[in-house]
Amino acid sequence: MKTIIKNVKIITMDNNMTEYENSFVSIEGENISFIGHMKDFKEESNCNIVDGNNGILMPGMINTHTHLSMIPFRSLGDDCKDRLRRYLFPLENECMNEKLAYFSAKYAICEMLLSGVTTIMDMYYFEDEVAKASEEMGIRAFLGETIVNFPSCDSKEAFGGLDYAIKFIEKWKNHNLITPFIAPHAPNTNNTKSLIEANQISKKYNVPISMHLSEMDYEIKYFKEKYNKTPIEYLESIGLLSDRLVAAHCIYLTDNDIKLLEKYNVKVAHCIGSNTKSAKGVAPVNKMLNNNISVGLGTDGASSGNTLDIITQFKLFANFHKLENKDRSIFPAKEIVKLGTILGAKVLNKDKEIGSIEVGKKADLVIIETESVNMFPVFDPYSAIVYSANASNVNTVFVNGKCLVKNKKLVNNNLEAIKNDLKSNMRQFEEKAKKQLEKAIL
Amino acid sequence: MKTIIKNVKIITMDNNMTEYENSFVSIEGENISFIGHMKDFKEESNCNIVDGNNGILMPGMINTHTHLSMIPFRSLGDDCKDRLRRYLFPLENECMNEKLAYFSAKYAICEMLLSGVTTIMDMYYFEDEVAKASEEMGIRAFLGETIVNFPSCDSKEAFGGLDYAIKFIEKWKNHNLITPFIAPHAPNTNNTKSLIEANQISKKYNVPISMHLSEMDYEIKYFKEKYNKTPIEYLESIGLLSDRLVAAHCIYLTDNDIKLLEKYNVKVAHCIGSNTKSAKGVAPVNKMLNNNISVGLGTDGASSGNTLDIITQFKLFANFHKLENKDRSIFPAKEIVKLGTILGAKVLNKDKEIGSIEVGKKADLVIIETESVNMFPVFDPYSAIVYSANASNVNTVFVNGKCLVKNKKLVNNNLEAIKNDLKSNMRQFEEKAKKQLEKAIL
Repeated sequence: MKTIIKNVKIITMDNNMTEYENSFVSIEGENISFIGHMKDFKEESNCNIVDGNNGILMPGMINTHTHLSMIPFRSLGDDCKDRLRRYLFPLENECMNEKLAYFSAKYAICEMLLSGVTTIMDMYYFEDEVAKASEEMGIRAFLGETIVNFPSCDSKEAFGGLDYAIKFIEKWKNHNLITPFIAPHAPNTNNTKSLIEANQISKKYNVPISMHLSEMDYEIKYFKEKYNKTPIEYLESIGLLSDRLVAAHCIYLTDNDIKLLEKYNVKVAHCIGSNTKSAKGVAPVNKMLNNNISVGLGTDGASSGNTLDIITQFKLFANFHKLENKDRSIFPAKEIVKLGTILGAKVLNKDKEIGSIEVGKKADLVIIETESVNMFPVFDPYSAIVYSANASNVNTVFVNGKCLVKNKKLVNNNLEAIKNDLKSNMRQFEEKAKKQLEKAIL
Repeated sequence: MKTIIKNVKIITMDNNMTEYENSFVSIEGENISFIGHMKDFKEESNCNIVDGNNGILMPGMINTHTHLSMIPFRSLGDDCKDRLRRYLFPLENECMNEKLAYFSAKYAICEMLLSGVTTIMDMYYFEDEVAKASEEMGIRAFLGETIVNFPSCDSKEAFGGLDYAIKFIEKWKNHNLITPFIAPHAPNTNNTKSLIEANQISKKYNVPISMHLSEMDYEIKYFKEKYNKTPIEYLESIGLLSDRLVAAHCIYLTDNDIKLLEKYNVKVAHCIGSNTKSAKGVAPVNKMLNNNISVGLGTDGASSGNTLDIITQFKLFANFHKLENKDRSIFPAKEIVKLGTILGAKVLNKDKEIGSIEVGKKADLVIIETESVNMFPVFDPYSAIVYSANASNVNTVFVNGKCLVKNKKLVNNNLEAIKNDLKSNMRQFEEKAKKQLEKAIL
């Protein structure tokens, strides 16, 4: 059945940044089939009508770096200096299991959908569980199994993720909405052999490879001391740089690093919230964009960035990059919305299918309501989204032509039930976490 | 009638940072009369019960710097370099009038209340209208009439605000919830005479004096060139520094400025969102606090900071100050919540009455619900408020013992009706604003 979203202001985010006042969009099957003005709108029989109530219709937002299954870690030891080693690694190794990964992912996808995120790039463990959760929820998902140089929650042996990844990619590679990929954790938590092997798998199956890169000061130090190279120079030396690589963070970049990222068409997932909360730094996004590098936005996991919505990242992005560049006019709101939509699609090499509202593209669509108190007046829809909105202003969400959120509620799923499932699978985690908290002297 | 808020986790923000798990609070008249654990809770007849559903009960948040009536400017020319002179001043002078100031203030107070702000410090024009709006809405309000060295929307002559302020203070000085004060716009938009006169009025009536201070690079330059002083040194030289002064912004501070602020017990309203969006800088809050200066948080006006809720400021504060200090453990969430509650009360010299949940204090209370998707899990209530929450998680708000927001809706007011009144009084403003936008080459 055809669906029509009517009474919306459309920001298409297409090449010409076309906008339509007081308009409607038709959806047939998975795709956008028509865009028109309300004056030309005619009621049709056998057609599902969604009234946008003069809200803003925008492309679904794209979250290019996250860890869905890390929901249980939210609000745990946020301000602790050594939280990675004190909370994350021990709890992950002791308490993360298939079920917890599955129910956490399901819960995280609820949060993504309710906040207008329609496509995610996730990397974690038990990605087969994450894929099941994604499939059930109907989100568009790029899912990468993690490779790391120590035994992990889903592998008794170091680098066990390599075998897992092959099976995982084989299983999911022809799925309509799910793109499996391979995810070495970081260059310093792998070795040359495992990185090369991961890259071969990525090449063989023509799937993305993603990793944390140039994120940690000790990572930079390690490669400087061992190879007199930056992590990115090291990756070039072993053949890892390619247009399949999505590098998350990229905070500490030299000019030569930026040249290399451009030369090999490496994509970057920028996580401003996570990077600044952890006091690491602000990645040089302006320089990267000026050097034709594709940059998208990422929330990181709920353990690092706490919220999984892109709208929060918009606001943080604006304020941090304006201040960083000492220029209030740099990155106007319009450019920031691009990062969360069409540029995010470019990072995933999917900009021909998603990231903008154009006839023939997939119907990944979000209505931002402008009725709530924080949304008046709207002189500029991009400003309203970046500076005025928060995740709760997302009213309606379509993924691949299907309405998954309506009137701020999940259409096919019960959030309360999903939360209860997560809670009952989280008991062991919770007990251990509370013990860790008691031990901690923050 | 007595009111009891039950089933809440209480963060009192008292001197010992006392917390109560699974507890209740009684309100009698304007005050908090009892705090207890649910195990000791007994149903009472003739008592109004509010079920907190395991949410977090916190003191009402305090917004120490805002311009309520600037709602019409929201999302207008946000990324424009010269927006003060291109949009704000001309539109203010041509279109701001009594009615627009009144309805805008009323609308802004809706936004404040719905986001858990129970006390505001406002400075603008037509403050008598703002006072009427505040009185009708029931918010606790410190309201300052602006003095400026050019004719303004509410005065045909420069410095006309001085006469207005005297009448305004006389009229409102004995009000239960409203504290009138006087507000020279900034040192560089006044002169020595007007500043001294304003200070005399503040002293005579024993009301606060507030102004923008050390906010603009050209302000710093002006005083350096004219007096070889910083703005704060200049204010000291003319006797303006005192514990009645609330200085907004204070971005560009020398070590000597900080010494002076401490010496005279000057209070500071820190507006991190506004200061960073405009690419100005991050005020040295850590230094100020280490020098015993009282600092509160402010949203600034909807023209500068876009949203009027303190929760957004919490998140921005955390990330900016952690990065600024290169330390993820500085300003743990608990300390940040202090800035928006008890420290804000100190800025207003009202910490004996508001800012924490203690028996005998005014019942300015907020329930943050933890049911929404972004609020699970809660290992730390302060982390949940600072890093996970947004304004939409505010469920219930009491001011001075009265329930003004319940289930995320205004209790005594209709937001839609207030918005419609504002809209119909905003037509001229809107037309002019759109013309300005058309002229602008952003």
